[in-house]
Amino acid sequence: MANGNEEVENKQIVLRDYVSGFPKETDMVPSKTTLKLKVPEGSKAVVLKNLYLSCDPYMRSRMNKSDGSSYIHSFTPGSPLVGYGVSKVVDSGHPDFKNGDYVWGMTGWEDYSLIENPDSLIKIKYTDVPLSYYTGILGMAGVTAYVGFYEICSPKKGEYVFISAASGAVGQLVGQFAKLLGCYVVGSAGSKEKVDLLKNKFGFDEAFNYKEEPDLNAALKRHVSYLYNIYFDGLKKYFPEGIDIYFENVGGKMLDAVLLNMRNHGRIAACGMISQYNLEKPEGVHNLLLVVTKRIRMQGFLVFDYYHMYPKFLEFTRQHILENKIVYVEDVAEGLESAPAALVGLFAGRNVGKQVVVVARE
Amino acid sequence: MANGNEEVENKQIVLRDYVSGFPKETDMVPSKTTLKLKVPEGSKAVVLKNLYLSCDPYMRSRMNKSDGSSYIHSFTPGSPLVGYGVSKVVDSGHPDFKNGDYVWGMTGWEDYSLIENPDSLIKIKYTDVPLSYYTGILGMAGVTAYVGFYEICSPKKGEYVFISAASGAVGQLVGQFAKLLGCYVVGSAGSKEKVDLLKNKFGFDEAFNYKEEPDLNAALKRHVSYLYNIYFDGLKKYFPEGIDIYFENVGGKMLDAVLLNMRNHGRIAACGMISQYNLEKPEGVHNLLLVVTKRIRMQGFLVFDYYHMYPKFLEFTRQHILENKIVYVEDVAEGLESAPAALVGLFAGRNVGKQVVVVARE
Repeated sequence: MANGNEEVENKQIVLRDYVSGFPKETDMVPSKTTLKLKVPEGSKAVVLKNLYLSCDPYMRSRMNKSDGSSYIHSFTPGSPLVGYGVSKVVDSGHPDFKNGDYVWGMTGWEDYSLIENPDSLIKIKYTDVPLSYYTGILGMAGVTAYVGFYEICSPKKGEYVFISAASGAVGQLVGQFAKLLGCYVVGSAGSKEKVDLLKNKFGFDEAFNYKEEPDLNAALKRHVSYLYNIYFDGLKKYFPEGIDIYFENVGGKMLDAVLLNMRNHGRIAACGMISQYNLEKPEGVHNLLLVVTKRIRMQGFLVFDYYHMYPKFLEFTRQHILENKIVYVEDVAEGLESAPAALVGLFAGRNVGKQVVVVARE
Repeated sequence: MANGNEEVENKQIVLRDYVSGFPKETDMVPSKTTLKLKVPEGSKAVVLKNLYLSCDPYMRSRMNKSDGSSYIHSFTPGSPLVGYGVSKVVDSGHPDFKNGDYVWGMTGWEDYSLIENPDSLIKIKYTDVPLSYYTGILGMAGVTAYVGFYEICSPKKGEYVFISAASGAVGQLVGQFAKLLGCYVVGSAGSKEKVDLLKNKFGFDEAFNYKEEPDLNAALKRHVSYLYNIYFDGLKKYFPEGIDIYFENVGGKMLDAVLLNMRNHGRIAACGMISQYNLEKPEGVHNLLLVVTKRIRMQGFLVFDYYHMYPKFLEFTRQHILENKIVYVEDVAEGLESAPAALVGLFAGRNVGKQVVVVARE
């Protein structure tokens, strides 16, 4: 490693320009610059060596030209993308961080990042789990699943829980939390491989490939006749009693089908709507009158409002990981140069499990 | 009045057949039968003389042929409609009710009704307000406004409140509750007369005629420039700071426009969606992603779940009526034969204030 006095080469992934519609790999371009691995004299900055980068659906909205209405700033064309990552401190002017510390938080899509204000970085306390986990299950996606399920869904033992985009970083964890509580859990995903993961690895009661269901309503809904289910098992569907809790990650047609199958007093935690992010005009949702007649509570949330719960979440989730009561699947892309394809792949559903990019392993 | 031993003529309004699309007056037909004004020996029934009948939007769903999914039973074609009303007990086999008592609750659209199970009727305790009020402000619509605002909206002093169908039975009361709490209140309605009522009678801060707003989003939203508002007062719009609370009575396009103008952590009480009740396929709502990014809580409710709060509501609201701190506007149709037109008029927005039908005054 450089000793800090000389400048080192710093590979970057730069946003070419604002994006409309589906993002393409070529919207992001590899670039090179140099960086001195030393913080400016007297500053509170840190210099990070980036190890793992997280690809998250919310990043799509940062590629839009801001109209001032978004909850989050747009990326700057010509500059590296920014996102959650796990990094090692290589120089620090901040009293909370010293050389060699591992941290997670917002960093650049580049080999090294100078973080002017590191206050929001979180120092990694436990290294008895893979460091990459702090880009997902022990980072932003994990807290999202935790607060979304326990705080927003008001779950009770025995309830019927449906999760869309269920093999993703958030969905796989929500499903496991729900199983720990004694719920019946069904997930939807977009390939046979993901469906198998949900059933065989994450312990969901059922899972289905939404691309193979021409009628999502029929897939979810109960049949009136019990015998019909027994004799025509191929037609047995997933919520014979209806859905108490829907953990919403996709929006659009799936939400419409779910509304038809919600139970009275059901809850919908609106975490994201990935099917809508790249559309010029979002799909219409037609069945909202059922929110009234079924007394449904639909509640949106953003993890940023809940980071005060991180320590409690961390103890709970790490313990379950160490005891093998919660498992985790990552889709690992090797090398910074693979990051654009990895991010674009999210929106085509190419990732199987949490999408991570390895910049360096140490 | 008959002495009970003879049969009296009983005029009725009968549902001709299940309805699809907009209901027409001719979907309901006047009819005649006879009734003995005496309860069957040994029964717990009561015989009611009906005085005032309530026309309510939810009644539309009872005109549909049931597919088993509705929260409420369909009417029976060939039988009188059923709805909330104020009645006088003319004979009773039930220990809670005696001749001459006034009650409100579910009764038939007819001169006299035999109620086999009167357990859900509520005996009217206070007659120092007009009896017709128990079809609205002191009945189902009143409790709806009370629980919808105080229980579902989590309102705070100074918040920005928007109410659609605001001059209706529920809306006019929600607006006054919000003003009592110190909120800024804007209502929408469908005529100049209703808008004037909202501003001049009910004390709303602002009101507008949605039919005269080609762009609902522009009507609601803030202008960036304050000077622009001052110099072009005709263009001044209603929520320069956005909406904290939306009391939803109409659905469809209005909901889409409201979502664009909600503030972070806003709340939507979904009470009804009258613009959608007569459509074969409900309109699509496109802006639900904002539920996530603005952390909106949208909650449906039905008053039937909250009748345990009736006594508390009644004391509160009656006191405010007696002190003239809450006012109330009824649209009174005279005679049972006017009931079909009155009910149909709800869906064209013809009523100004709460729609009541007078069957008899005593």
